[in-house]
Amino acid sequence: MAKKHALSITREENYSKWYLEVIKMAELAENSPVRGCMTIKPWGLGIWENIKKEFDKQFKTKGVQNAYFPLLIPLEYLQKEAEHVEGFATETAVVTHSKLEKDENGKLVPASPLEEPYVVRPTSEMIIGEAFSRWVNSYRDLPLCINQWANVMRWENRTRSFLRTSEFLWQEGHTVHATAKEAENYTMQMLKVYTDVNRDILAIPSIDGPKSESEKFPGAVDTYTFETMTQELKALQAGTSHFLGQKFSRSLGITFQSEEGKEEFAWTTSWGVSTRQIGGLIATHSDDDGLVLPPRVAPSHIVIIPMLKNKEKAEAVMTYCQELKAELEEMAYYGNAIDVVLDDSDSNSRSWDWVRKGIPIRLEIGAKELEQNTVFMARRDKDAKDKQTIDKAEFVSTVKSILDDMHNNIYAKAKQLLEDNVKRIDTKEEFYKFFEKDEEGARAPGFALTHWNGDAELEAKIKEDLGVTIRCLPFSEAGKEGLCAFTGEPSKQRALFARAY
Amino acid sequence: MAKKHALSITREENYSKWYLEVIKMAELAENSPVRGCMTIKPWGLGIWENIKKEFDKQFKTKGVQNAYFPLLIPLEYLQKEAEHVEGFATETAVVTHSKLEKDENGKLVPASPLEEPYVVRPTSEMIIGEAFSRWVNSYRDLPLCINQWANVMRWENRTRSFLRTSEFLWQEGHTVHATAKEAENYTMQMLKVYTDVNRDILAIPSIDGPKSESEKFPGAVDTYTFETMTQELKALQAGTSHFLGQKFSRSLGITFQSEEGKEEFAWTTSWGVSTRQIGGLIATHSDDDGLVLPPRVAPSHIVIIPMLKNKEKAEAVMTYCQELKAELEEMAYYGNAIDVVLDDSDSNSRSWDWVRKGIPIRLEIGAKELEQNTVFMARRDKDAKDKQTIDKAEFVSTVKSILDDMHNNIYAKAKQLLEDNVKRIDTKEEFYKFFEKDEEGARAPGFALTHWNGDAELEAKIKEDLGVTIRCLPFSEAGKEGLCAFTGEPSKQRALFARAY
Repeated sequence: MAKKHALSITREENYSKWYLEVIKMAELAENSPVRGCMTIKPWGLGIWENIKKEFDKQFKTKGVQNAYFPLLIPLEYLQKEAEHVEGFATETAVVTHSKLEKDENGKLVPASPLEEPYVVRPTSEMIIGEAFSRWVNSYRDLPLCINQWANVMRWENRTRSFLRTSEFLWQEGHTVHATAKEAENYTMQMLKVYTDVNRDILAIPSIDGPKSESEKFPGAVDTYTFETMTQELKALQAGTSHFLGQKFSRSLGITFQSEEGKEEFAWTTSWGVSTRQIGGLIATHSDDDGLVLPPRVAPSHIVIIPMLKNKEKAEAVMTYCQELKAELEEMAYYGNAIDVVLDDSDSNSRSWDWVRKGIPIRLEIGAKELEQNTVFMARRDKDAKDKQTIDKAEFVSTVKSILDDMHNNIYAKAKQLLEDNVKRIDTKEEFYKFFEKDEEGARAPGFALTHWNGDAELEAKIKEDLGVTIRCLPFSEAGKEGLCAFTGEPSKQRALFARAY
Repeated sequence: MAKKHALSITREENYSKWYLEVIKMAELAENSPVRGCMTIKPWGLGIWENIKKEFDKQFKTKGVQNAYFPLLIPLEYLQKEAEHVEGFATETAVVTHSKLEKDENGKLVPASPLEEPYVVRPTSEMIIGEAFSRWVNSYRDLPLCINQWANVMRWENRTRSFLRTSEFLWQEGHTVHATAKEAENYTMQMLKVYTDVNRDILAIPSIDGPKSESEKFPGAVDTYTFETMTQELKALQAGTSHFLGQKFSRSLGITFQSEEGKEEFAWTTSWGVSTRQIGGLIATHSDDDGLVLPPRVAPSHIVIIPMLKNKEKAEAVMTYCQELKAELEEMAYYGNAIDVVLDDSDSNSRSWDWVRKGIPIRLEIGAKELEQNTVFMARRDKDAKDKQTIDKAEFVSTVKSILDDMHNNIYAKAKQLLEDNVKRIDTKEEFYKFFEKDEEGARAPGFALTHWNGDAELEAKIKEDLGVTIRCLPFSEAGKEGLCAFTGEPSKQRALFARAY
């Protein structure tokens, strides 16, 4: 007999539909009437608020201050850095008018054309760099470390909730330094903040390293990425940190007087993660019962489901539940108060509804638990039917270690998947065989670590043949030389190849 | 001899220039290259983050959940509510193209015109209402209380940092209820959240009540406002809460099945405050030495300024300062950890720089304080030269009550200004004499509480003659009938008249 699942579709049956079903049933987001844009519902935004809070805390330890820059960018600014504008010109929302008026049919139409159009920011290097050119004067002003939490727009043709949307929420850090070395170090430091938070809070393992030349951010000298693995074994670029060298400081005139009194161009960085992190979270942890939330990002940690069928005991059971809720909510877990939902709705699918929403702990409490002073507990990292009775006091005193245990389990499972599906491949033949199937909707075979001669044309050929790209040149492989699997030429290190999301 | 001030211009000399000077010298914000838009610098955004945190906490106690809706609104949605669109059509940013390309001169120009243009949200009733029409089905789904923290755009001709900018940050709450009464109550509840937070956190007193018909939000049945007083005695609409009746639910189809099984139109509300609150904060409290921050919204509470002239003692003084900082930062004040800046920069204007930034407490610590185990303290609510030596342990143990005392002083001063400058005026002659001077840049004479017959034409005439508007019909005057000062006709209550910001 087939196992029954809380979702109407499984990963095995159709991964893409399953992904959308998780989002729908967990009430994370929905499509909006605006091309390629989603509406983020409270449960989804609650996850983002927790992610944001954690990153914000970490950024502050690195000396970062938040600021806010205009949504619109004048075209003349965008034009100042050639590679940068090339990278974004084909997907920008352009504001051309400042008014609406009615036409002869009473239909609203744009009026009052602007002399100079604006674009809705796809990223803010140019508008922030313009401010930096005024804010930075002396080496005493450096380093300058600014972050912005904001919405950005990049019109996409094929969108997918959280993973690729025309508007998304993100943070973009922008820093200015006196030396190349300091800027390079900072770029790496922020990448480490990203991978640490992903591991310790989102329970997501990743592989990090520099991008190849052709996969870099438009205008960057070096782009560092961390790549995670979805359950269909595709790579997801979860966030990036860029060393911009002096490119943007030269095009925008960010100069400073050095300690020796010389006027010098500064060195800049930028780095960002977005609501795509939620897509990564879904793709990494969820199962055929729906969303699985690592407890450190869950908007609520525990749901208490009072079982009130025994009418005589109903009031006492409710009191027992309310007291437990109050007791739990006095505790904190990872800087957030433990959040408890008391679901006394009359729905008869309460337990499964919360399974689908991925809440870490479910407590069912009825007359029996009241009598025995216990809770009947289910954990989202275990089978939905695997429930256990625990003494209430014991539950309260161990709830944080239960949550920690869940985090560790969820992380370990994801780590195992990643480790099991990265293959070292040493010949072209094996490589082409590994990646050969690329049908619409098919699972990928995994990641390949393969030596490559560094040639961009070869990289392009592989992409054309197999739809496979170099995700990064993993730090873990740096310095381990070998021979290119495709040409036999010398290779400085293995590259990480995969189908990407 | 004239008193010296930390700003180059006083309120008396030129209020408008003084306001901008406060912002500049406190490094709150600056103008950007985008028409009418400002860049909010870290100290200014820090204030906003604290305001946001406090409101968010209060909203949650009223059952509000945060969500995020698209930045862009399709024209067809905007068009659905006639009064609403009229109110915003003349000041919207219109997105008409989805791409940029280079013209023959290499200049970037808009390309790929959209079939249907979008506007950048000036407010989100229409796009959120569209979602509500799908989210709400049964009385069981009600009340639905959603809030969004977002950026919005309304192109303004005359802008002023924080008070009126083309792009601003705000929150917009949108709720749906089963009955008119519940929606009306909710509208009032949220107004109370606003006035409470303004009094208890921002130290800003206000006068609240409904707007007159002509001053309502486009599409609202009732708009409630709270009005504060600037130091040039003008009124500032600090925030509004709207009862929308069934207007938006009818135009957007927000219906629900009642407990009796009947399909009914729902009742909706919306309410918002914005970064204008920071403008209000500046205009209410600041003085000729710069910004004055009520301690509960200050991004940092205390600056420690080590005096290191005695080179032998320098290291020991720094250690003393660092230890004090660490000790203070273990405490919390109004839900935030006490934030301490240790300013060991080599600037010789450190103390005045922090006065201008409005930090509540300044501690100067040198060899003498080290020896005596004391701190040399100055409070921003007192004269800059009024400093006192306190035992260090005593300072640490009383710092929270010092901050409370500052809050109370700052509030009391603002309350006094408001009370001293609201006049009950009973004749047209006196009213016209009171408001007669309306020169560019002139201070206003204060607010007038005057009986009015309720006639919109009379209201328009007064506005035309004197530049004075009805700010609200104060709750405190409700039910106190009288005779219209202008016509002798019956008046239900006094209206609050003022020149507005």
